[in-house]
Amino acid sequence: MSVYSRSTDGKPPPHEDVVISSRVRLARNFAAHPFVSRANPKQCEQVLDAAKRVLLDPAIAAGMIWVDLNQSTLRDRRLLFERHLISKHLAETEHRRAVAISGDETLSVMVNEEDHLRVQALERGSRLGELFQRVNSVDNAIEARLDYAFSPRWGYLTACPTNLGTGIRLSVMMHLSGLKMTNEIEKVRKAAKDLNLAVRGYHGEGSESAGDFYQISNQVTLGRSEEEILREFVEDIVPRIVEYERCARKKLATKDTTKVDDVVFRALATLRAARLLGHEEAMKLLSRVRLGVCAGRMQNIDLDAINELFLLIQPAHLKLHTAAELEGEALREARAAVVRKRLD
Amino acid sequence: MSVYSRSTDGKPPPHEDVVISSRVRLARNFAAHPFVSRANPKQCEQVLDAAKRVLLDPAIAAGMIWVDLNQSTLRDRRLLFERHLISKHLAETEHRRAVAISGDETLSVMVNEEDHLRVQALERGSRLGELFQRVNSVDNAIEARLDYAFSPRWGYLTACPTNLGTGIRLSVMMHLSGLKMTNEIEKVRKAAKDLNLAVRGYHGEGSESAGDFYQISNQVTLGRSEEEILREFVEDIVPRIVEYERCARKKLATKDTTKVDDVVFRALATLRAARLLGHEEAMKLLSRVRLGVCAGRMQNIDLDAINELFLLIQPAHLKLHTAAELEGEALREARAAVVRKRLD
Repeated sequence: MSVYSRSTDGKPPPHEDVVISSRVRLARNFAAHPFVSRANPKQCEQVLDAAKRVLLDPAIAAGMIWVDLNQSTLRDRRLLFERHLISKHLAETEHRRAVAISGDETLSVMVNEEDHLRVQALERGSRLGELFQRVNSVDNAIEARLDYAFSPRWGYLTACPTNLGTGIRLSVMMHLSGLKMTNEIEKVRKAAKDLNLAVRGYHGEGSESAGDFYQISNQVTLGRSEEEILREFVEDIVPRIVEYERCARKKLATKDTTKVDDVVFRALATLRAARLLGHEEAMKLLSRVRLGVCAGRMQNIDLDAINELFLLIQPAHLKLHTAAELEGEALREARAAVVRKRLD
Repeated sequence: MSVYSRSTDGKPPPHEDVVISSRVRLARNFAAHPFVSRANPKQCEQVLDAAKRVLLDPAIAAGMIWVDLNQSTLRDRRLLFERHLISKHLAETEHRRAVAISGDETLSVMVNEEDHLRVQALERGSRLGELFQRVNSVDNAIEARLDYAFSPRWGYLTACPTNLGTGIRLSVMMHLSGLKMTNEIEKVRKAAKDLNLAVRGYHGEGSESAGDFYQISNQVTLGRSEEEILREFVEDIVPRIVEYERCARKKLATKDTTKVDDVVFRALATLRAARLLGHEEAMKLLSRVRLGVCAGRMQNIDLDAINELFLLIQPAHLKLHTAAELEGEALREARAAVVRKRLD
């Protein structure tokens, strides 16, 4: 299962009312091989070989699975993308590439994405500190075996200059439906921009903020230590946005009760009644139900079921679930059936 | 209660799946008084006196109630309008006017509307024949006591030339939600126009076809006998449109089952969940539920409850129901509460 459907230690994830998931990823390149954009097929293959040898070593991480993406079906690649385990680019490109994934899907290492390695750790809730340590230990273990491209002056060298230096990106996926409904979301966007943060949608770069999900991440990787970036993110930025969102929800629940109830109960009723559901509409309605649960306006709705539905309503997951190559109306029908079943 | 909530003889009204109600009305003017548009206040008063004397005579119709509209509150006048017992004009104008209504609300005579008398009989379902006889007998009884403005050449004289001749207007309120959904409604509109029929909305002249209700009525009153007009309407026009609508519903229920179920079950769910409901939206959703019931896609929904809700969700009815002068959000909240209670 996915990071969206359970907690690894059994405890409710921190700030899970607002923070859906946290992610830490590092961009790394091997010193011995040209960058991916400069490499010929043979050199790409050599990177894969080197990476596979290291990543499947149990001393790096236990139980890693190697997925050769050139041998995978498009549906399987899309499944991995929908589970946030590979990027859209890696799912759709044609050159030689792979991904190594831990059995619990909390660690994935993309090979031959923009950089040779993209090491990412992913968990439910707000857990950037733990994820940072995990990624760091994997990174150190790899570096003990292979040389990274590194400059004493610039730090870790990366394909894109925005990743140069620490090569680190911290991000949290936040559900800001309260701020959206109180029309304060633009204020938060602006404040985030002033703090040099990137605000993106549900699937990161280039995706829209469907369902009121916002991926917030650091942009500056150069001239600051990894610890400094992390501390600011964990101690200042995340708690502050969480607090804004909680205030908005409280305000809605106490001052605009009827308006909120109208929106959230309509959403739940529609999800339980619809026979055809588009992806975007389903995201929007689930987001509203999630707001209703978190703002204390709805009882007897399982937050985990809602969180998991965001995953299951995606096209490749629906195709997996129904074992059919659904398109158009059939896909919308299958989506409505999955949602009805879960929410009944 | 109203003609929309019960049948006078206990039997289900004919064609009630499509024909909500039927109405026959006559326009008549007294020979002894100037037309309303030409009359001074004193002359208007004289018309009221003459009409009241005749209309409250039990030989004309049993148990008629006289409502002096200049003594009524705006809310009460709007109630009468919402129940189709007086026109919008009569509810809103300021000059001396009144209405005589039978206790069961199936007969009403507006006094000093555009014409001195507008005699109308109204029933659920398709009952133009009976209504015609009833209106005729009232008309004959009045004419036996007072002289009408009548020309041997033009027939009954009326304020508006479109009513000249027989002064009769036959109309049926039809629920054409099937034809709307199959995109055939424009064809019907066009055919009706070719047959010299007027197609109007839920509240007649000038109103929109909210909730897929269409009032279809004759336009030609001159040069044809009342019986001829009636026969064509009852034997040809109404059955033909009823058949079109039933075909559309059947087609939807058998060929577009999922699409129809999606629309009608969403509508029912929204009506049961909403905390705020605008009038137009409520009409639209109730119309869809009505389609779901009539097309056999929904069980356990009482068609009478739906029909009655169309009446109860109107502003003046809501104010009567809650005994409060509601506006804006409070009105939308009261509407949602009434709908939820009825449909639960």
